[in-house]
Amino acid sequence: MDLRTSALLRDLIGNQRVAHLATLRGGAPMASMTLYRAQPDFSALWLHVSRLAWHTQDMAQDAHVALSIAEPDDGRADPFTLRRVTLRGKALNLPNESPEHAGLKASWLERFPEQAVNFELADFSFWRIVPRDARFVAGFGQIHNLSAAELSRIAAP
Amino acid sequence: MDLRTSALLRDLIGNQRVAHLATLRGGAPMASMTLYRAQPDFSALWLHVSRLAWHTQDMAQDAHVALSIAEPDDGRADPFTLRRVTLRGKALNLPNESPEHAGLKASWLERFPEQAVNFELADFSFWRIVPRDARFVAGFGQIHNLSAAELSRIAAP
Repeated sequence: MDLRTSALLRDLIGNQRVAHLATLRGGAPMASMTLYRAQPDFSALWLHVSRLAWHTQDMAQDAHVALSIAEPDDGRADPFTLRRVTLRGKALNLPNESPEHAGLKASWLERFPEQAVNFELADFSFWRIVPRDARFVAGFGQIHNLSAAELSRIAAP
Repeated sequence: MDLRTSALLRDLIGNQRVAHLATLRGGAPMASMTLYRAQPDFSALWLHVSRLAWHTQDMAQDAHVALSIAEPDDGRADPFTLRRVTLRGKALNLPNESPEHAGLKASWLERFPEQAVNFELADFSFWRIVPRDARFVAGFGQIHNLSAAELSRIAAP
């Protein structure tokens, strides 16, 4: 993957705020919108979700997940040219008592200041999505498959 | 669901162009962006995809799918307020020789005029997603579950 394509993928994962999370629910695929923040080295994508949410129940049952992140539809003539990436991996809950929690909370609130209220609720916690691979569609027919190691290499500019 | 909420869901499904499709791939969930167009009575959502695409291969293996459709992120302070809906259902391929194909093609090209080239390619065809249910998140804590019958009732204004 050339430097320009790497930069496009880094911008997409690093700067979007919304992902669509695929989980297994009763043996069938489920998809739902969620907010995320990527670890700067792309070793993890973080979700902050309620255990009352369906996708959280799903992740607790089966850790396999996929995240689909796309440029928002800006009304362009051909939305098929929107750049998008799928990250497949496993989800792990991070207990709120973990030492990493305070730093993650600060980072989360920097991006999502309106979400402060959720940190007052006992049912919210962070989930770490550890990517196994990524599939980047940079445009029509421009598909790039990356391993987790390749993903981490493009993370740092 | 009150009239205003019904209208919001009708607008969301009817007017967005991009969905994130969850499929089963090797027993694990997969998610990828795709374009869609809803049948006016919401009895189906149509995809026009290549059989070379992973999600098409997945649907051919296991018909269970979910579509997640959301308002595009407009940079608002709290993206958690973006309206989104998940439709779960089954996917059925429509052979290009079917009598419905011409009408669907016209409707597809009306919305996606730049996609005409894909109708020249033998590997593209329509897939009908028949929804079994819908889960509409109209805002924080405003979750509405609808059966397929309830979904069809809100389709017609």
